[in-house]
Amino acid sequence: MGANEQAGVAASAAVAALAKANARLADGKTPLVKNCWYIAGWGSDFTREPRERTLLGQSLVFYRTQGGQPVALLNRCPHRSFPLSQGKLEGDVLRCGYHGLAFRQDGSCAEIPSQTSVPPSTCTRSYPVAERGPFVWIWMDDAARADESAIPDTSWLVDPKWNYVTSYLSLQANYVYLQENLLDLSHFTYLHPSTLGTPEYARSPFEVSTTENTVHISRFVAECDVPPIYARTGIAGKMSRRTESEFVSPAMHHASAVLSDLQPEPGKRRDFTVYITHFATPETQDSTHYWFSFARDFALGETEVDEYMRQSAITAFNEDKGALEAIARIYRTEPEATGAEIHIKSDQAGVAMRRILLRMANEQV
Amino acid sequence: MGANEQAGVAASAAVAALAKANARLADGKTPLVKNCWYIAGWGSDFTREPRERTLLGQSLVFYRTQGGQPVALLNRCPHRSFPLSQGKLEGDVLRCGYHGLAFRQDGSCAEIPSQTSVPPSTCTRSYPVAERGPFVWIWMDDAARADESAIPDTSWLVDPKWNYVTSYLSLQANYVYLQENLLDLSHFTYLHPSTLGTPEYARSPFEVSTTENTVHISRFVAECDVPPIYARTGIAGKMSRRTESEFVSPAMHHASAVLSDLQPEPGKRRDFTVYITHFATPETQDSTHYWFSFARDFALGETEVDEYMRQSAITAFNEDKGALEAIARIYRTEPEATGAEIHIKSDQAGVAMRRILLRMANEQV
Amino acid sequence: MGANEQAGVAASAAVAALAKANARLADGKTPLVKNCWYIAGWGSDFTREPRERTLLGQSLVFYRTQGGQPVALLNRCPHRSFPLSQGKLEGDVLRCGYHGLAFRQDGSCAEIPSQTSVPPSTCTRSYPVAERGPFVWIWMDDAARADESAIPDTSWLVDPKWNYVTSYLSLQANYVYLQENLLDLSHFTYLHPSTLGTPEYARSPFEVSTTENTVHISRFVAECDVPPIYARTGIAGKMSRRTESEFVSPAMHHASAVLSDLQPEPGKRRDFTVYITHFATPETQDSTHYWFSFARDFALGETEVDEYMRQSAITAFNEDKGALEAIARIYRTEPEATGAEIHIKSDQAGVAMRRILLRMANEQV
Repeated sequence: MGANEQAGVAASAAVAALAKANARLADGKTPLVKNCWYIAGWGSDFTREPRERTLLGQSLVFYRTQGGQPVALLNRCPHRSFPLSQGKLEGDVLRCGYHGLAFRQDGSCAEIPSQTSVPPSTCTRSYPVAERGPFVWIWMDDAARADESAIPDTSWLVDPKWNYVTSYLSLQANYVYLQENLLDLSHFTYLHPSTLGTPEYARSPFEVSTTENTVHISRFVAECDVPPIYARTGIAGKMSRRTESEFVSPAMHHASAVLSDLQPEPGKRRDFTVYITHFATPETQDSTHYWFSFARDFALGETEVDEYMRQSAITAFNEDKGALEAIARIYRTEPEATGAEIHIKSDQAGVAMRRILLRMANEQV
Repeated sequence: MGANEQAGVAASAAVAALAKANARLADGKTPLVKNCWYIAGWGSDFTREPRERTLLGQSLVFYRTQGGQPVALLNRCPHRSFPLSQGKLEGDVLRCGYHGLAFRQDGSCAEIPSQTSVPPSTCTRSYPVAERGPFVWIWMDDAARADESAIPDTSWLVDPKWNYVTSYLSLQANYVYLQENLLDLSHFTYLHPSTLGTPEYARSPFEVSTTENTVHISRFVAECDVPPIYARTGIAGKMSRRTESEFVSPAMHHASAVLSDLQPEPGKRRDFTVYITHFATPETQDSTHYWFSFARDFALGETEVDEYMRQSAITAFNEDKGALEAIARIYRTEPEATGAEIHIKSDQAGVAMRRILLRMANEQV
Repeated sequence: MGANEQAGVAASAAVAALAKANARLADGKTPLVKNCWYIAGWGSDFTREPRERTLLGQSLVFYRTQGGQPVALLNRCPHRSFPLSQGKLEGDVLRCGYHGLAFRQDGSCAEIPSQTSVPPSTCTRSYPVAERGPFVWIWMDDAARADESAIPDTSWLVDPKWNYVTSYLSLQANYVYLQENLLDLSHFTYLHPSTLGTPEYARSPFEVSTTENTVHISRFVAECDVPPIYARTGIAGKMSRRTESEFVSPAMHHASAVLSDLQPEPGKRRDFTVYITHFATPETQDSTHYWFSFARDFALGETEVDEYMRQSAITAFNEDKGALEAIARIYRTEPEATGAEIHIKSDQAGVAMRRILLRMANEQV
């Protein structure tokens, strides 16, 4: 028996065990988690021109009232299913472009042109939304259970002591794999060699902790050189570096990195912090809206630093997009692949998160 | 309970009742009605060059004999399924471009090159066709039941007292919704504001009458201004307007509009009539060949009027195409939409027609 | 009863009998035959740059070791299914571009960066390959049963007494129909009128013989003119022509044509031979990699003759590709077509081959 055959025998034993273990993890076929606040878009996506966006497989229409409130309605006239995004705003009412039925921001119908009365059942669905800094969040589950206090904290995006940039990628892959990618630091060296990856960092020890619904990774490097993204801002000298990464919810992953000057000059600041926040909203089962923000508490007002951070983030996250989409193509033609995947030491956080995601998906009504 | 939730509760009660009611109406998934004469194409589509066209999901080949008769055959050699439309005519016989089997216009095989004899089972299907004015009609059901007397009247298209123009649109939507659109006058104001729509006309009273297999709408406006399309021809003054719209068959909708001068000058004509006839032939379950003719009994021989009518029709009917295709995209991703649609007062004729269409589909063998 | 109806009745009786008979023949839905050596590609497809190719529905990665050996691995990292073709070679080891797992040419894992040890189950599949002349052959079934002696003979491709050209077409059709096309000489006249077809040749008698797994056709023309492809090389005079065509395996069809000068001048050669060899490798159930070589034992070293033969082959085989793809489109929309196909006298060899192919498909584990 050669190495190839031995490996083959071992592999088939492993396949049976794996299939069982992997069935406990969320994957690309796991139902989407609906009872969660997701990013619907930037505030600037909600204007006086109705626009379409698909979230969680549902086509929605976005607009903004004259008073400035963002509105999200089911993008389907209840009469003949015409997309309301092709209609026109009259004040705060959206009029369908086919037969002229008009809908208020709560989804109720204000007028049916060919009738004198409007039955109350003539309505489209309205979704709770909440604007926070540059983003509008949306609740796609039962509106009665929408609780704005459950929206994750992003208060630094409205804090003058912070600067941030933000951007967006359309990802042709299921969001579970994006969330797993974000909890995995071992791929930096190989997928991001020229942007994020350094072999030393990838191999530095880390600690994973979990709560019922979150997964957290901590890393501490006692002494390191200033990474390029900081050096750019004039920071120099020997530093320690603490990074914290968290799966906050199906909709959000938050990472912070604090660089501390080991020998700060008198009167100079010691700590420099960046917050990189990733927002994943399933567009469909197989595609994901991916927003991210990159915030810092130093080099405020320096637009060159803004631009550098934006470009660094776009470049690096496009590498993730490329990898996740290449894998998604494999999954499409070889659907047996997911269940056969093995796990390695650095998957600890990702696997914990996928177990949570599967439970969340199964628990919802 | 807010307006949104109230509407939600009312909507779910309505959904159950609607699903039941809507199950009695033809929709985009209803089997196509085969026992009906449909337009196959313009006469000019049948030439000495074989050409392919798909009708009712079936690929056909069209050609014209040396004697001038249009021919429609199943576009599939019975030997190795090569499309006969890629073959060549030899006299009235169509020779397959792969192995040279040759077929007569009745579908029988005239020659198999590698054999001396031809078994009678070697044949392709031939479809009854009939040429009427600029169009060729086809019968796709059992040929034994083809009865040319069932072809709807379009005699004005060969009457020198009439002028007409004709055109074609390829519609990526099921034909049921086109037929419904044609019976619906309430959308003019919203979908065709710059071509057909006037709020007054949309709100004018109408009467719906049905027979076993047809649906008819009448409208009468006692006094109105001359619509632009007539004004263009020099007609002026106060008029009455009578319009009649009819679902004639799954293949045809016919509308007539008679404008009558309320104070005709002595010796001048009183009535001016246009016939707008729509021909819907399912290409597949999800796409439709849409021909239309626009005929008039005045301004004869004026080619500028021809061109104006053609362009007006194309512009307006392209608006319908856009709406029906936008809805078809919604139906594709949200297949539950059809069954949940509500009906309004102006749907009376369309709903009656869809009930007839469903019965026709269910009655056929 | 007209000719049309008579044909119809006869046809429906024939349909029942045909469906039964046709169920004994391989068609486009028959499982692919895996226990067979297929062409994986040209040797030049295996380089130090990994490349992807799909064979028998499986995505593979090809590369060549530093020592020159071609390697074919399953193109899927066992960890997170990233395509290894997007990885990088380090010596003879292929490193995944996502998390850096490294694989040897036997598929075993050489390194997992985030771990100190490598479990033996961490491996990807390696496929037996063998280089023969310009081609690399691959065995996609159980590696333990790979037997290089079963690779069909193509020794003339490495014999200095022969010259050859080779080319490739990507065929969007199932390989069964390509193999059938290659055993069918009756289509030359109709599909290849300007390249291969002569009515006389198509009608010349032939003999079919079969073994358990092969099908052979012989044709002899006692006296004929020199075909253009030979005339080009300066051969002239009256000739006899013997052609032999063989279905060698699901992967290969081989044809030889010997032209013999009936009155050779003293000291001049009598026989001129060409070998046209066709290699069909299913890419998927519905598409086929189609390589071919065109070899001769005369006009050696004449590059103009090379180019003429290459162009003739590409032109003619593109006609086959066009026909097979037109039929594949028909099959897609009218899946009932295959089962209803009739057979004619010239199908004897093709039908015998399809019976063999179905048995081979059913016999494999």
